[in-house]
Amino acid sequence: MSGAGSAGVVAPQLARFEVPLVLDCGQTLPAWQLVYETYGTLNAARDNAILICHALSGHHHVAGVRADNPKDVGWWDNMVGPGKAVDTRRFFVIGVNNLGGCHGSTGPSSTNPATGRPWGASFPFVTVDDWVRAQAHLADHLGIECFAAVMGGSLGAMQALQWTISFPERVRHALVIAAAPRLSTQNIGFNEVARQAIVTDPDFHGGDFYAHGVIPRRGLRLARMLGHITYLSDDAMHEKFGRELVGGEHRFSLDVDFEIESYLRYQGDKFSERFDANTYLIMTKALDYFDPATRYGAGKLSRALEGARASFLVVSFTSDWRFSPARSREIVKALLDNRLPASYAEVDAPQGHDAFLMEHPDYQRTVAAYLARVAGERA
Amino acid sequence: MSGAGSAGVVAPQLARFEVPLVLDCGQTLPAWQLVYETYGTLNAARDNAILICHALSGHHHVAGVRADNPKDVGWWDNMVGPGKAVDTRRFFVIGVNNLGGCHGSTGPSSTNPATGRPWGASFPFVTVDDWVRAQAHLADHLGIECFAAVMGGSLGAMQALQWTISFPERVRHALVIAAAPRLSTQNIGFNEVARQAIVTDPDFHGGDFYAHGVIPRRGLRLARMLGHITYLSDDAMHEKFGRELVGGEHRFSLDVDFEIESYLRYQGDKFSERFDANTYLIMTKALDYFDPATRYGAGKLSRALEGARASFLVVSFTSDWRFSPARSREIVKALLDNRLPASYAEVDAPQGHDAFLMEHPDYQRTVAAYLARVAGERA
Repeated sequence: MSGAGSAGVVAPQLARFEVPLVLDCGQTLPAWQLVYETYGTLNAARDNAILICHALSGHHHVAGVRADNPKDVGWWDNMVGPGKAVDTRRFFVIGVNNLGGCHGSTGPSSTNPATGRPWGASFPFVTVDDWVRAQAHLADHLGIECFAAVMGGSLGAMQALQWTISFPERVRHALVIAAAPRLSTQNIGFNEVARQAIVTDPDFHGGDFYAHGVIPRRGLRLARMLGHITYLSDDAMHEKFGRELVGGEHRFSLDVDFEIESYLRYQGDKFSERFDANTYLIMTKALDYFDPATRYGAGKLSRALEGARASFLVVSFTSDWRFSPARSREIVKALLDNRLPASYAEVDAPQGHDAFLMEHPDYQRTVAAYLARVAGERA
Repeated sequence: MSGAGSAGVVAPQLARFEVPLVLDCGQTLPAWQLVYETYGTLNAARDNAILICHALSGHHHVAGVRADNPKDVGWWDNMVGPGKAVDTRRFFVIGVNNLGGCHGSTGPSSTNPATGRPWGASFPFVTVDDWVRAQAHLADHLGIECFAAVMGGSLGAMQALQWTISFPERVRHALVIAAAPRLSTQNIGFNEVARQAIVTDPDFHGGDFYAHGVIPRRGLRLARMLGHITYLSDDAMHEKFGRELVGGEHRFSLDVDFEIESYLRYQGDKFSERFDANTYLIMTKALDYFDPATRYGAGKLSRALEGARASFLVVSFTSDWRFSPARSREIVKALLDNRLPASYAEVDAPQGHDAFLMEHPDYQRTVAAYLARVAGERA
């Protein structure tokens, strides 16, 4: 975007809720908090707010940089900022870390007030529906009755979709990017391998590793290595790494031979240092459980969306084999079945599922054009 | 096949070689053995022999049943037997366990004569080329100058292809099924996750777990769970398991929720009981290293196959995303570039990579028809 800039230095904020939150699993969180960031200004009519929901390993730091670390750029900074597709000169944008997370919102590494120790394995398995209910409390806290838009990619897109089902009167537009209406069997299989890598790591200690002063590094590392492969297309991996050898020849040992091995190990190591294992388990289960068709539509996504009132932009990426364009088209079909206004863009991008995080002129322009229309509605 | 029967009760045989085998890695095996099975009868001309090469977790027990366990049916019993596609009334069929294996051929769990202890991590990383050289010694041992055919699926197919390069005068036909001329970056990535699962299992002990009386069960289990997903198509998994819940509802715990999780855990558990971790590492490295284009053709598969003299049947399966039909077509192109006789069949099968092990009328009929022609040549 020409003339686009950074959202600048941002600081996280905390919203503390003393109202009990009843979760889908049957448990209740008596008190809880969400950490969030905002960019831009809420207008007087309080109708220019956009909520951005994060994916598996994301968080509230969506755009701009942190005061204490100017290199810590938000994960969707190419999308959100002044003059960018999500234009913070027009919109008041909110990034939030979900319940169960490990970046400041109440989660398994938080202290359980009942015991004075980290929740650990006893933190409840939260769902996409639970997150959306918690986010509605945040909207109340910020005095936002109705979002101009709720948007996200991957698991974040599932939350945007759920918003239109759970709170049809509180969301005018939903941007559902690189999504699926529910995981495929294969998707669940990959998640299960990742979970088993974590829970069978001897350092997991049944989820109470905090008390042992260790982290299940091996398991988290494997989970991330595997996840990473599914985020990229075979072509993108070929383009970036091919069969390049780190040392120029086969080593006939367990040392790294190929560049791709080195890359995956590095990504796995880095992730295992910074992410909470229990959060990873919770996030993958939320993915597996998400299934509005079964929960709200007796098996039919169209029925689940009968009460929705939002307009939709659905975006998929040609090379995404994790959540393929066919999955996005299932969503579009259900929207059209309900005569809901829906635009659909299938972006020709080589990167695979991760394309939703990347810069691609067609992609950012599509979002920008859609949101310009949303902004115009208010004018 | 109508009227097709079992190869009957078979017993493994041992061939012991006191001739040093120089390996690609530079090491030499001074003495070594191969375990094998045979079905049918070698004719007087000794020209009706078919060698069957196994894939990642396979072995020499290809067809028939074992005397001590009538339920232990060979892994390609639907393909090999009297009246079957590989008709043991016409052909003398040999199944062999490769070097580095864990079913009786010299491998990491064998005793290293130099130390009197299991080879463990010190067993050399063998290659597809090494295997083919070792198999040529077995052919000598059996008095077979030239195979009527060498065949295999997946990693087994790579050996069949290598035979036509390493010993062009010793193989009349190669049946290359569900193969790739070399692994893709993604393929290597999945293998690396599996290897890291094994080597980071605390029970791996740097490969010398035998001395500790343990096996790296967790790592092997994860490797197999992951492998299994890549052997199946998304559609096949959907068809078989869908999103069926084991207990009828979400459990909100780390217990099994979905049938697919139960299945993968079961497959992983079973595999970890019966397979050697060091063998798994060796087999995956052999897969990663296989690349005749680079080794023999300065990057071009066509050049690598310039010396080949065999006729070929190449078979792929539409739903195989591990080694897709496009990879088989790369092989066919290189064969045609060299004006080598090549038949190609793309079988419309839903099962994914594992289709090569399964019954499918078109598939078995294609192999049967091809081999009938091979048998006819001798008549």
